[in-house]
Formats: sequence, structure tokens, C-alpha cells
Amino acid sequence: MRIGELSRETGVSVASIKYYLREGLLPAGELTSPNQARYGDAHVRRLRLIRALIDVGGLSVAGTRDVLAAVDTEDVPLHHVLGRTQAALMGEVAGDGAKRSSTRTSVTEDETADRAAKLLDAVVARHGWRVGADNPGRRAAIEVLATSERLGSEVLSTLLETYVEMLEPLAAAEVGNVVARGGREDVVEGAVVGTVLGAGLIAALRTMAHESASTALATGPAEAPPGG
Amino acid sequence: MRIGELSRETGVSVASIKYYLREGLLPAGELTSPNQARYGDAHVRRLRLIRALIDVGGLSVAGTRDVLAAVDTEDVPLHHVLGRTQAALMGEVAGDGAKRSSTRTSVTEDETADRAAKLLDAVVARHGWRVGADNPGRRAAIEVLATSERLGSEVLSTLLETYVEMLEPLAAAEVGNVVARGGREDVVEGAVVGTVLGAGLIAALRTMAHESASTALATGPAEAPPGG
Repeated sequence: MRIGELSRETGVSVASIKYYLREGLLPAGELTSPNQARYGDAHVRRLRLIRALIDVGGLSVAGTRDVLAAVDTEDVPLHHVLGRTQAALMGEVAGDGAKRSSTRTSVTEDETADRAAKLLDAVVARHGWRVGADNPGRRAAIEVLATSERLGSEVLSTLLETYVEMLEPLAAAEVGNVVARGGREDVVEGAVVGTVLGAGLIAALRTMAHESASTALATGPAEAPPGG
Repeated sequence: MRIGELSRETGVSVASIKYYLREGLLPAGELTSPNQARYGDAHVRRLRLIRALIDVGGLSVAGTRDVLAAVDTEDVPLHHVLGRTQAALMGEVAGDGAKRSSTRTSVTEDETADRAAKLLDAVVARHGWRVGADNPGRRAAIEVLATSERLGSEVLSTLLETYVEMLEPLAAAEVGNVVARGGREDVVEGAVVGTVLGAGLIAALRTMAHESASTALATGPAEAPPGG
């Protein structure tokens, strides 16, 4: 297909496609004349992935290039590609990460954060989670738990165990669903959409579930749903 | 206690305390001389709640005043106070909400959003959730599901049922924990901290759980944790 058709097929503007070609994110098409190139399904898949990384994930061009390089290097196990994608989404990739380094150091320098880290690591270890010490979510969780303690609130530390118990099957379902897509590009695209939009969906559903739970407490339990 | 002691006790600056007094968020202390007032435990509790609403929840002074009015009107059932707090946190309170009204209308005007709403309502009804049509999370969930469909991704619609199943006990645990705090001010303070910081903690733990689940898929299941 020509560039105009590629644009219609993917919903990405011709100007953006040309930009991705110049930046080397999208491989060149097959030249059919000095001024015209032909594109195929591989370009459609790659454009969908680029759009997920940049538009949904908010990655920079440098961060996107890093993830694509991992996708394209067949030696890199899919598991590591997903890890690199996750790090990029949390702004930990070279070029995006520099501005966060001060926050990162502060975590280890604070007594409250130290206690939060110990609490978190103990709960996670008890549940057999296999998570590296540099997982970007671990740092974020420590920050939140420390903030909560500084506010004098014990709500989150009380609920931590419950959260860990309930997020384990949820994350397993998510990873299983995404990995089942097969192709490396499709898996990474699904991981980006699932991670970013999934976080928004979970937050929104949690707000609905709070209203439902509060209603049940105030007015007594609902009738059992059919089949439930 | 004097205003300086109230400041030390709560970690809120004297300037902020004076501002809250002027804005009527914090009731005046008992005058002990024309220029001096004495404050008590009620002021400490109220300041903690104000700080949660403004600093953690990001509410405006108007939004804070609205929630405090509901807290102070004993006729308003706690369940409704929590609903109003939730709406304020989602920016739906008068004064904060105006700028969102265009987003809100767009939801109903779009065919994709219409399909997303039907899907969401069907899943939620099947699980017996009792949620008003104007729940702010419902609108947000519809937006996310519609965005996901526009991207051509079916990851989230596939996972929706799983999310609903897993968030139900999680939200029930959260609401139960917060309501058990007893006093209306403490309950609302816990709801704000739990809602806002809890969302951050859940997102962070989900990132950790993804790494753990991906590791398990790549390397086989871990040994069962002790007692698990």
C-alpha cells in the first residue's frame, strides 16, 4: 500500500508517518520509484505499536526507540522486553529517567521510607512475589506508604496485605492475556495499552465499587445476583 | 493549646491555619484575650481532615467547604457524606466541575462510548453492583473503554469481567476498614487518604505484580511461599 493508505489503515497522519520514518522508528518502505514507496502489514503492526508507545504510553522518541530495539532483537527474551517496556512507561529509561533520579535517591535516605520499604518487602516476600529491588513500582509503593505514614494515617499499611493478595491474580490474568497474543509486537502493544489504560479502568471501577460497597453497608446486602 | 502548638501538633503552618480560619474551614478557637485564642482536640482533628482534603485530595477551598458542610450536618447519612467526598475528589463538585462538563456530554454523544457504556453496565449489573448512573467512576470507565476500542485494542474489554470480580472484595475491604474508624471526620479523612494514596499504591503494586507474573511465566512457578 502507499503512504496514504497506510495512514487511513492506522489512523496515523501522513506527517507523523514521515516523522517516524525520519527518526528511524518505522523501517523504510520498498521503493517503487525514486519518490514512492510501498508499505506492508509489518508497517501497520509497527505503527500501531509506535502509536501505543507514544500516544498511550507517553514515551519520548528515545524511549520508543529503546523499546523497539528490544522488540527487534530476537535474542532478548520476551520477559525482558516487557520489563524494559514497563520501565520506559514509568519514565526510567535513559533520557527520561534523569529528571527522576533525585526522587529516587531520596527514598533510601529517609527513615520513614526505610520502614515503608521493610514493610513492603516483608509482605511481598511472604506472598512469594519475584520482584527485583529496582522495580519502578517498588519505589513508587515505598513513596506512597511513606507519605501515608507522614500524614499519620495507617489506612494503607493496614490494607497492604489485602492489596497484595488481590493484585496477584489480577496481574497474572493481565500478563496471561497479553502474552497469549503471540507476536512480540502485539504482546508489547497489548502490554502498553493494558498497563496505561488498564490503570485508568481499575481506578474508575474502584470508584464504582466503593459506591456499591458503601451502599451495601448503609442499606444491607443486595439480593444475590443471578448465578452469583 | 495556642496556635503555635496546634501548628506543631498537626504539621500545618501557622499561616495556613490563619488562612483556614479566615475562610471559615476551621472554627475559631476560644478567645482567652482579645489577641489570643485557645484550640482543642476538635481543631486538631479538623485540621487533619482539611489537610487530607486539600493537600492529598487536591480539593479547592470551595470543594473542601462543601465536604465539611456535609460532615458537620449530622442529618446527612455517612454514606452520602462519602459519596459527596468521592464526587469532590473526582472534580465533580460545584466550582470544580464546570470545566469538565464538555467531557461529560461527549460521553453520551459517541457511538463507541455508547457501546462501552452498555458493556460496562451489563457486567456491573451481572455482579449486582449498586452504582448510580452519575457515579464519576462510571463516566471515567466508559471513556477508557471507548479509547481502548478506538485504538483497536480488545485487551481491556476482555479483562473487564476479571477486573470487576477482583475489585469487588478489594473495595469492600477498603470501605469496611475506613468506616470502622467511627467518627465522621476520621472516616472521611481515611476515605480521602485511602482513595487518593490507595490508587497510587495499587498502581505501584500492580507494576510489581506484573514483573512477578511475567517472571513466573518465563521461568516456571516459584516454590510455594510458606503457609501460602
